[in-house]
Amino acid sequence: MGKHRLEAFSDGVLAILITILVLELKVPHGTEITSLAPLLPVFLTYVLSFAYLGIYWNNHHHLLQLCSRVTGSMLWANLVLLFWLSLIPFATGWMGENHFATWPTALYGVVLLMAALSYTWLQTLIIRAEGPDSLLAQAVQADWKGKLSLALYALAIAVSFRLGWLSLALYVVVALIWLVPDRRIEKIASHAPH
Amino acid sequence: MGKHRLEAFSDGVLAILITILVLELKVPHGTEITSLAPLLPVFLTYVLSFAYLGIYWNNHHHLLQLCSRVTGSMLWANLVLLFWLSLIPFATGWMGENHFATWPTALYGVVLLMAALSYTWLQTLIIRAEGPDSLLAQAVQADWKGKLSLALYALAIAVSFRLGWLSLALYVVVALIWLVPDRRIEKIASHAPH
Amino acid sequence: MGKHRLEAFSDGVLAILITILVLELKVPHGTEITSLAPLLPVFLTYVLSFAYLGIYWNNHHHLLQLCSRVTGSMLWANLVLLFWLSLIPFATGWMGENHFATWPTALYGVVLLMAALSYTWLQTLIIRAEGPDSLLAQAVQADWKGKLSLALYALAIAVSFRLGWLSLALYVVVALIWLVPDRRIEKIASHAPH
Amino acid sequence: MGKHRLEAFSDGVLAILITILVLELKVPHGTEITSLAPLLPVFLTYVLSFAYLGIYWNNHHHLLQLCSRVTGSMLWANLVLLFWLSLIPFATGWMGENHFATWPTALYGVVLLMAALSYTWLQTLIIRAEGPDSLLAQAVQADWKGKLSLALYALAIAVSFRLGWLSLALYVVVALIWLVPDRRIEKIASHAPH
Repeated sequence: MGKHRLEAFSDGVLAILITILVLELKVPHGTEITSLAPLLPVFLTYVLSFAYLGIYWNNHHHLLQLCSRVTGSMLWANLVLLFWLSLIPFATGWMGENHFATWPTALYGVVLLMAALSYTWLQTLIIRAEGPDSLLAQAVQADWKGKLSLALYALAIAVSFRLGWLSLALYVVVALIWLVPDRRIEKIASHAPH
Repeated sequence: MGKHRLEAFSDGVLAILITILVLELKVPHGTEITSLAPLLPVFLTYVLSFAYLGIYWNNHHHLLQLCSRVTGSMLWANLVLLFWLSLIPFATGWMGENHFATWPTALYGVVLLMAALSYTWLQTLIIRAEGPDSLLAQAVQADWKGKLSLALYALAIAVSFRLGWLSLALYVVVALIWLVPDRRIEKIASHAPH
Repeated sequence: MGKHRLEAFSDGVLAILITILVLELKVPHGTEITSLAPLLPVFLTYVLSFAYLGIYWNNHHHLLQLCSRVTGSMLWANLVLLFWLSLIPFATGWMGENHFATWPTALYGVVLLMAALSYTWLQTLIIRAEGPDSLLAQAVQADWKGKLSLALYALAIAVSFRLGWLSLALYVVVALIWLVPDRRIEKIASHAPH
Repeated sequence: MGKHRLEAFSDGVLAILITILVLELKVPHGTEITSLAPLLPVFLTYVLSFAYLGIYWNNHHHLLQLCSRVTGSMLWANLVLLFWLSLIPFATGWMGENHFATWPTALYGVVLLMAALSYTWLQTLIIRAEGPDSLLAQAVQADWKGKLSLALYALAIAVSFRLGWLSLALYVVVALIWLVPDRRIEKIASHAPH
């Protein structure tokens, strides 16, 4: 089964989600620079969620490149991943508009955690299909980034009721972990058939 | 006539519809977990409609894979299918916001029924073009899933005025019928040229 | 210059426009069938505009298939076409919500006329590049459909201030002219390289 | 690493942004031609932003055509470019709804300037990867258009607090600089592998 349409559909959904995010930035009524001030938390959350969706697109791109055959289970795992990602604009809006209040901040973490679990599921399915000696299995290996992210999301949710600022800091840290380019994977990917 | 753009356009519309659905999940004003409670029926309907659109994308993907030549009639049948699917966000919103009231629940079924009929029409056109010995004709054969879905939609609409919960249960059942992977078709599809 | 991205971008914009249309169908507050009644004119306009955007996508699909080389001028003509098509949801909303009042009905025609002129411009550029003996030049030939549409749009705008129902009927007629499949062009297109 | 998905994702985001712009054109309540009058500044800003996004898509199209290999840094530079472009609908809405007031007009320039800087960054990365003798390096060369645009944006921001109309005129001028076709680049691009 070809992977072209899976990529095209995922690209479409991710492109729309990343763009729908900006709809939360409601045009203010005033014309002074100060009328933008209340938008600052919404804007910062926008930047964070934009980065997350960009990271997911980027990782998805690499993951699929190393996948030679798409199975039915992968289609569903991918759909579940897209489902959780589709809740990011909602979680972003709730957190941004409420200046990082407790429950919205926790929910943001839950959505990120569920998306990360779905991504791990999709990755596991692809590795299983490609075999233990595949380029992907080598590229992912211990997958410490993936495991660390899951742990940090769980920690962020746990502390959100006491230390909201720490949860937020953890979300930023996870994003930074992924934004730093991982040249090793890229190198392996460059040997893969496209 | 190439099928590439038909797939690209359908993927685009489906990706947008699945994402527009989430716009019905309006960010609540409160910051307590309880402020999410009124959103629960909207959220459950969102999950159901997301699954339906995902199933349609998946089936459309398989159907087009087994189609070697796109005719003008197929373009129109596909457009009619997209038209009915485009009404899913509206029907979802009306049903979810009104806690599964009678008329909205019936309308949801009508939209699903019309979409299913359009899909059957498109499938019939493709089978006719491919011939009775084609891979698609073999894969679909008696098409009991398709026929059962049509019957269950009709039943759900009929009972919606007396037993709204049954209609809803039937919509969930049809979705589950399609979510269970059909390895036989996948097997046949894997022999088809992409 | 490859035409792949021109097609992809146009498909994307058309897919989004056709889906944005449905956002005009606002979920009603009541749960009775009667609460859908005020939506009827909006719904009918939605069907009409959906058909128009579908027709444009279809014709654009065929036109580009017969285009072997994309020039800079074609990119701009295409962008101008997309600009006028992008105003269709606005014109649809204004006409539908105002029950086909005079000015909205006239504006709808103006938008359709400008889109048709842009399409004709794009078609002329492609025919010029392909040459008078090209498949496209043969397929389009006298282009009576295109010319008739332009005339009918102009007529519809002219009469909209006196006979609004006639304008509306003319919009429906033009759509029907294009919905009836034109097997001759399809036949020629089937000989073209994809 | 293949560039196909980078193009597809960027096309998707650009197509959605150009279409989201039109959502700022809110359907007016009246049915007279005069009820469109308050929309005029919004409409003119829409035309300007539509042109800008069209220009970016066009230039991005050419740039990627001359790029033979996509690196990780290019993916991030591209994402940053899309981020700034994603703010165009917001900046457009704020400027259009406030009849080109001071701060909104300045912000519009800032968003354009940041987008232009991101584009320059992406272009520099690609030229570096392609080498000084590449077709792209020759096509861009002194890049006076790019440099002039950056200078004009900076000037427009600077004067926006005193001469708002001049800022606006400068935004129009930059758009016109890019809308005039640059046959030299097109000629070089036509020799490139697609």
